[in-house]
Amino acid sequence: MQMLKDRILKDGMAIDNNILKVDSFLNHQVDVKLLNEIGKEFKRIYEDKEVTKILTIEASGIAIACIAAQYFDVPVVFAKKYSGNNIDKETYESEVFSFTKNQMYNIKVSKKYLNPRDKVLLIDDFLANGRALLGLGDVVRQAGAEIIGAGIVIEKAFQKGRELVEKDGIRVESLAIIEKMDKDLITFKN
Amino acid sequence: MQMLKDRILKDGMAIDNNILKVDSFLNHQVDVKLLNEIGKEFKRIYEDKEVTKILTIEASGIAIACIAAQYFDVPVVFAKKYSGNNIDKETYESEVFSFTKNQMYNIKVSKKYLNPRDKVLLIDDFLANGRALLGLGDVVRQAGAEIIGAGIVIEKAFQKGRELVEKDGIRVESLAIIEKMDKDLITFKN
Repeated sequence: MQMLKDRILKDGMAIDNNILKVDSFLNHQVDVKLLNEIGKEFKRIYEDKEVTKILTIEASGIAIACIAAQYFDVPVVFAKKYSGNNIDKETYESEVFSFTKNQMYNIKVSKKYLNPRDKVLLIDDFLANGRALLGLGDVVRQAGAEIIGAGIVIEKAFQKGRELVEKDGIRVESLAIIEKMDKDLITFKN
Repeated sequence: MQMLKDRILKDGMAIDNNILKVDSFLNHQVDVKLLNEIGKEFKRIYEDKEVTKILTIEASGIAIACIAAQYFDVPVVFAKKYSGNNIDKETYESEVFSFTKNQMYNIKVSKKYLNPRDKVLLIDDFLANGRALLGLGDVVRQAGAEIIGAGIVIEKAFQKGRELVEKDGIRVESLAIIEKMDKDLITFKN
């Protein structure tokens, strides 16, 4: 998606060969107009698929998922993150390892909001190591629902996320795919 | 806002005289169509005011703020929550006490995304004790920006939030104001 790649080049900051800051339009300040174009693009990609729900993960995913949901005309469910082991019978839960924070956390979705008839599109801001996406997929399968695929804003192709997620049987569509990066240098694959 | 009050009566759950669960449409599953109507209503209320930015707080505020921002045609900034004392020179920070979690946390906004020319609308899901809203107002004032007012989805009128926030000089507009509640009983004031 050219508009997104242009924006990443203009306002994104590659801190090193691993961390890309997009706080000025995606993760802290949010450019809602750009999100509208991102939402339309996800809809274009998944146009021939029936989607009944969008599932994302707090916090940054919420903005993207809610704006995109307007084009799919479906509700959003956002998984909640927590640390600790307070297993709740009323929720689907999955363990996710965060490489950014170097710690394990859990994601939790109430059983009320996913059911076996749901066809779920997973949406997230980044795909890097894929752990968050695998956790969301796990939650959907626990509910007996169908995973339609994933819509990712920015993929880091030099990490293992896509490989792991595709091996798990999940279709991955990323709007900007970064092949490599370093301080002040970003190269796209798509 | 009648549509919102009807929805609270239909799908909200008063657990006791203090806790209202609106997880089915606002705080976990998100009814984006309802958020569109909420966004339009905030715009109607603040129509005669210039707004350059919407400020909210993660996580639940993000959905409401981003959908509403489409009607104001402005970016959203969401304050990040964290515990601990890692004061960052590059951020505006404020301490907030959470009565729900009975603990102090900090909110943080990068100095890059609020400036003295900003006219800021604060948006949040609930107004109860008012601490989150006072923290957001504090952050706006640290930036030298102007607080236009607050747009709240659900206010608990039986708590002290409005009194404290208005005493702080912030205009408060709430779309549903709960006068009292208890298990299976919700009475609105507006």
